[in-house]
Order: sequence, then C-alpha cells, then structure tokens
Amino acid sequence: MSDSRVREALREFVAERDWDQFHSPENLAKSVVIEAAELLECFQWSSEHEGDRVRDELADVLTYCHLLATKLDLDVDQIVLDKLDKTRSKYPVETARGSSEKYDRLPD
Amino acid sequence: MSDSRVREALREFVAERDWDQFHSPENLAKSVVIEAAELLECFQWSSEHEGDRVRDELADVLTYCHLLATKLDLDVDQIVLDKLDKTRSKYPVETARGSSEKYDRLPD
Amino acid sequence: MSDSRVREALREFVAERDWDQFHSPENLAKSVVIEAAELLECFQWSSEHEGDRVRDELADVLTYCHLLATKLDLDVDQIVLDKLDKTRSKYPVETARGSSEKYDRLPD
Amino acid sequence: MSDSRVREALREFVAERDWDQFHSPENLAKSVVIEAAELLECFQWSSEHEGDRVRDELADVLTYCHLLATKLDLDVDQIVLDKLDKTRSKYPVETARGSSEKYDRLPD
Repeated sequence: MSDSRVREALREFVAERDWDQFHSPENLAKSVVIEAAELLECFQWSSEHEGDRVRDELADVLTYCHLLATKLDLDVDQIVLDKLDKTRSKYPVETARGSSEKYDRLPD
Repeated sequence: MSDSRVREALREFVAERDWDQFHSPENLAKSVVIEAAELLECFQWSSEHEGDRVRDELADVLTYCHLLATKLDLDVDQIVLDKLDKTRSKYPVETARGSSEKYDRLPD
Repeated sequence: MSDSRVREALREFVAERDWDQFHSPENLAKSVVIEAAELLECFQWSSEHEGDRVRDELADVLTYCHLLATKLDLDVDQIVLDKLDKTRSKYPVETARGSSEKYDRLPD
Repeated sequence: MSDSRVREALREFVAERDWDQFHSPENLAKSVVIEAAELLECFQWSSEHEGDRVRDELADVLTYCHLLATKLDLDVDQIVLDKLDKTRSKYPVETARGSSEKYDRLPD
C-alpha cells in the first residue's frame, strides 16, 4: 500500500473495534464481492449514477481490498503493477487494440 | 490515487490498446464485481487458498477500482479515508467492539 | 421445487460424485454469486450477448440455487411466491408504477 | 419454467407496475448478481445464518433468474437439465468423485 495514512487509519479502526477476529481472508473476499455488488447497484437500472453514492461504495470495495492485502502481506500498488505486466503479454497492443474480446478469442 | 506510478501505468496501458471507449463507469462497475467474484472463487470450497491466485485476482479488482476512480476523478486513498470517517460514526467503538452485527442492529 | 425431474437429477449428480460434503449453505451461497458474476460477464462490455453462453451461465446460477434450496429444505417456487407477496406491499402499484426507484425512495 | 403459477404471478406483478421497460437482459443480469451478493451477505462473517433472511434473498435471486429466462424465452428447468448433461462430461464420476478441483485440474 503506497499511502501509509490509509493503512494506518484502517489498522487503528479495526483494532479499536476488535474486528480482526472476523477478518479471515475468506470473509474479506466475501466482503469485497458484497461491496462490489453494492457499487453495481448504483447502475442497476441505468448507466446514469449519483456521484456521492458511487464514491462511497467504491470506497467500501477498496477498504476490504486493503484489509485483505494487509492480511496477506501484499502491497496493493505492487500487485497491480505486477499483474499489468502479465496482462500486457496476454493482450498485445497489435491484436488487442480497439477490441473488447477476451484474450483467448483474439487473433493469434 | 496515492501512487502516480500505478495511475500512469494504467493510463498508458489503456491508451495503447484504445480501450477507453469500453470504460464507461457502468462497465467498470460490472468489471469490479466480475473480478471480485473471481477472487471469491479462490475460496469457493474452502477457506484455504493459493497465494498466487489470490494476489492476481485481488490485483484485477484493484485495477478496475483504479480505472473507475480515474474516470470519475476520484482519489482512491482520499475516498477510503472519507468513508472511514462516516463508518466511525455508524460503528462507535463502545457499541461495535467485538461485534460483527450490522450498524442498524447494534444497541443504541 | 416444482419439477421433481430437476431435483432428482441434481440429487443423483451430486451423490455419484460424493460432492455433498462440499455443499454447505455458505459454500453454495458463494457459488451462486460466483456463477451470477459469470452470467454478468456475458454483458461486461456491451448490452449485446450471445444466447448460448447466457443460457449456460443462467443454468449454473439456477443449479446452485436449487442445491441451496434443497439443503435448506425450501421449495424454490413457494419462496418466490411468498417473497412476491412481501414485494407487493413494499411497491404498491399506485406509487411504484413506471418508477425504478427503490421502495424507500418512493413517495408515500 | 415448470410452474406456471410462478411465471404468471411474476408477469402480472411486472405488468401492473409497468416495469418491463427496465428489464433488459443486461439489467436483469446485473440484478441477479446484486441479489446473489445479498444472499452471500447472510454468510459474510460466519457460516451460520438466519433461515428467514436466506429464504428471502434466495427468492430474490430466483425471481430475477425467472425474469431473465422469460425475457430470453428459456425454460428454467430445461436449461438446468441441459447444462447438467454438459457438466456430467466435464466431471466424469471416476475422476471427479470426492474432489472439489475444477475440471481443468482433474486427472485425465
């Protein structure tokens, strides 16, 4: 996690409430998808959305991602950069450009 | 977003592939939940998990969170800190300590 | 479950593979959302979709819903009808007509 | 759909509220995953669950599955049986018995 303010604020928040006991990796993974679905709910019936609600729901997804990363001793920025390297090879610019096809359907 | 390396790397990755055309807030919100479910799949039948797979799937969730935040001009760290302030009031230490109840079920 | 063919076919499928051991209510609930996200993936970048893929993914969601219902001794048709009664009161025709607002935002 | 009572009740419920206008296949797929996550929320912090809540949330998932099936002119029971045939070939009894591995990781 690049910003130690976030990491520290979350650590203190959880410690004060003694909530670490509920934060198994499995429970945090469930929480990420639960919050992600609440984010999607902002767009359930329309592509329009209310900015405030989206901001709060996205923050919830990120919060559980941070808690899971901390639990697994992962750096949230580094894993994004590492995964991007893999994705670059799966989606080379020359074949993937302008296409929303999944990599296994792209031309060789 | 605290780490401008991540933001810049993602911006370049998307621009090279001309993928911004697919990245409406709605499509990105769908993508967040799709990737969150793949993260959960690591724990589908057991609370045990493979570290590498979890790391990659968590990175995918974070990637789409970053793309959505950028699209909506939000700072991923600031919105987490702002939401934490709200959550602190909904879950005061004295009533929430050691409990996994939802705030509307906590004692007054 | 209205159709005993489906219930019986699923029971036999699971029994032959000795998979009931993995089918805790919690694991089945995880599975429902994992498959639901695969269904959504058919619409990730567009509202267009491929019929065959949607059919298979919807079948997967339904399959896990059936397995969870059986595990909890629920009748899939009856619970839908019972819930519909509740939803009718939350969304009375006169206020809900033509609106996609959530019930707590509808006019009194 | 095997039970024409369910199909007819849902058709009438939607028609009375003029909600068909919101029920594109894409919006219904979003709704399935949103409700599936609410079902999972019953198990967010524990494998224990409250029966009533699970029943209602499972009913919501099934309701949107039915609405999507109707919209796409699919029979909810037939697609489950058809998919089961495919799954039987992917998970032959002799290799899949007692294993929760995904089919592409099963021994040949």
